[in-house]
Amino acid sequence: MYIRKQRLLTPGPTPLYPPALHAMLAADIHHRTEDFRKVYRNVLAGLKEVYGTQGDVLCFGGSGTGAMEASVSNLFSEGDKVIVCSAGSFGERWIGIAKAFGLDAHVVSAEYGDSVSPEQVADALKAAPGAKGVFIQASESSTGAEHDLRAIAEMVKKTEAVFIVDAITGLGTMPLDIDGWGLDLVIGGSQKAFMIPPGLSFLSVSAKAWKKAESAKLRHFYFDLKKEKKSGEAGEATWTPVTAMVLALSTALDYIRQIGMPNLVRNAQMLAEAARAAVGAVGLELFAKHPTSSLTAVRPPGGMDSGLIVKAFREKFGAIIADGQGVTKGKIFRIAHLGYFDFPDLVGVIAGLELILRANGQRVELGSGVAAAARVYEKNLTT
Amino acid sequence: MYIRKQRLLTPGPTPLYPPALHAMLAADIHHRTEDFRKVYRNVLAGLKEVYGTQGDVLCFGGSGTGAMEASVSNLFSEGDKVIVCSAGSFGERWIGIAKAFGLDAHVVSAEYGDSVSPEQVADALKAAPGAKGVFIQASESSTGAEHDLRAIAEMVKKTEAVFIVDAITGLGTMPLDIDGWGLDLVIGGSQKAFMIPPGLSFLSVSAKAWKKAESAKLRHFYFDLKKEKKSGEAGEATWTPVTAMVLALSTALDYIRQIGMPNLVRNAQMLAEAARAAVGAVGLELFAKHPTSSLTAVRPPGGMDSGLIVKAFREKFGAIIADGQGVTKGKIFRIAHLGYFDFPDLVGVIAGLELILRANGQRVELGSGVAAAARVYEKNLTT
Repeated sequence: MYIRKQRLLTPGPTPLYPPALHAMLAADIHHRTEDFRKVYRNVLAGLKEVYGTQGDVLCFGGSGTGAMEASVSNLFSEGDKVIVCSAGSFGERWIGIAKAFGLDAHVVSAEYGDSVSPEQVADALKAAPGAKGVFIQASESSTGAEHDLRAIAEMVKKTEAVFIVDAITGLGTMPLDIDGWGLDLVIGGSQKAFMIPPGLSFLSVSAKAWKKAESAKLRHFYFDLKKEKKSGEAGEATWTPVTAMVLALSTALDYIRQIGMPNLVRNAQMLAEAARAAVGAVGLELFAKHPTSSLTAVRPPGGMDSGLIVKAFREKFGAIIADGQGVTKGKIFRIAHLGYFDFPDLVGVIAGLELILRANGQRVELGSGVAAAARVYEKNLTT
Repeated sequence: MYIRKQRLLTPGPTPLYPPALHAMLAADIHHRTEDFRKVYRNVLAGLKEVYGTQGDVLCFGGSGTGAMEASVSNLFSEGDKVIVCSAGSFGERWIGIAKAFGLDAHVVSAEYGDSVSPEQVADALKAAPGAKGVFIQASESSTGAEHDLRAIAEMVKKTEAVFIVDAITGLGTMPLDIDGWGLDLVIGGSQKAFMIPPGLSFLSVSAKAWKKAESAKLRHFYFDLKKEKKSGEAGEATWTPVTAMVLALSTALDYIRQIGMPNLVRNAQMLAEAARAAVGAVGLELFAKHPTSSLTAVRPPGGMDSGLIVKAFREKFGAIIADGQGVTKGKIFRIAHLGYFDFPDLVGVIAGLELILRANGQRVELGSGVAAAARVYEKNLTT
């Protein structure tokens, strides 16, 4: 009866930056021409700038999982001892990849909603001397928890292990001092804070990681860091790239550079703070003990299936928000803040949430959540 | 001074089907929703129909090289004896992948421009008894040569080897009776006869290939045939898919199904026949002994660098045509026919070629090449 706009509000794919979307229409371009090299060089330079590293940043055709695989297949050899931090579905993906490639994975885990602590990693480093790598998520998207990368990097730096960070939802939502802290390999994905559809993944490579690659023996071909670095220096991708997505990324990176990466991070932090305030104001609880700014994971009111909330958002407001994932499915819903999100996006979600909770018999005062979010926004505007 | 439209006329990326390009703009879609499953199911059903197989057809995020890697990493074990047919750059890519994964590759090669003969493969099968796979290109895009897949399949079928065909430029340009001939794994790519930009690759898997996968031990994670088959049955991709490209593919496949794959093949065959006639009429020679219909590789007039012709096309007519590739760079230029090409596209290229040849001191009568192409078109229209 009323207009209900479709809104994609998940923690990936995220809302698209319209000029980047439109840039895909120029995809009748050949990838071995100077026209394309100009675009690709802009992408590689832009990635390096927003990553904020002096190291190399490479781009692959494939999802973030492809770049995760690349970090394993390019830096290690069969049987290598590694430490895998796991606090959710994506930590489990690290375990899966490590096992698929025959690494000797020592798993350090935290319960869903919790984070792996620096102390746990310290113990693991002691218990597994000579470990060659430590794998972690910056932000564990399945639970909304964040890891203390800085403290963990401080310890890993002192060992021969490379510190490999899935920052697919972390980039652009939390401060990441890649070179300063010692994050050796940092993975990103196009459909997150980069504001474009899925299809590209990125990774930075430190000097320590390149050195590890020298002695690595695992077999690989498509995802090849050395080849990709060399191709990038010539302004090209090794294999035929996802040209439409590269065009989109070039435009999105220009926008992100214009905003400034620190401001993009602050935007996510402000929205996350506002979301947490709103969630508390409507009487709900957060799922993560150490919540990330990329998304806010919320427990539904006692006993209610979070799927009902997700469904109500879709049916009543045309909005696609995220349920839990893996074992958290039905147990949490997730409000996203990564990339091209602004305050009205959040207000729409919170106002919708208030209505959905009331329709499900919860006592919620209309506007209470929105007001709490607005107070955070107002405070951030004036300070 | 005059308008010079940019035209992408290479054997990949190929001209884009406009409605498919525009479909990418709907990329604000989540890949774990029923809306997307509907699109993805249409893609998988469409691929199966245009492949013309009762076997499975899977879709991967990544270039054709990714699907080539998948066929190796999913079906074989280290040290497996295989036969690799190589007649150009893409044959050499098979050799590279086989070596990267530690296969015992017995290479059967033909010179650039020639094709590996069925007799050579027969000899190789005798010389390497127990070989587990035979790799080949349907159409070797670097030289414009075609392989006699039917005759080779006939022999491979009788052995325990799986027949793995890179048909990236072969699909939609030559008849491929996948089930009838016994092509066990047939690889395609989005930026070829599928009329959309690069970013997706496809492969069909026969029962014989699935059986081989059961005992295969090579390590892999991102490109996983079994996982992808299972995901596809649920209407999804295993990892986050290249949604924009999937939307484009769905639209392009609807168009190809409407034309009919045999007619798409006939279109390429007619254009190739017309191109060959035109090339002869302007006094040039073909490079391939057994020319494919996906593209026509032409030797420039004695001693001339083909790069000059490619450059003249770009500067005088805004058209991007292809130079040779690898060792054929500078030695041939390539006129493409695969996918969304029609007669006026070809006429434009031939008329341009006549002018460029004359500007370079060749004696060519204006209209002679075009007339030869038109005669072929006329004959095909009336018979």
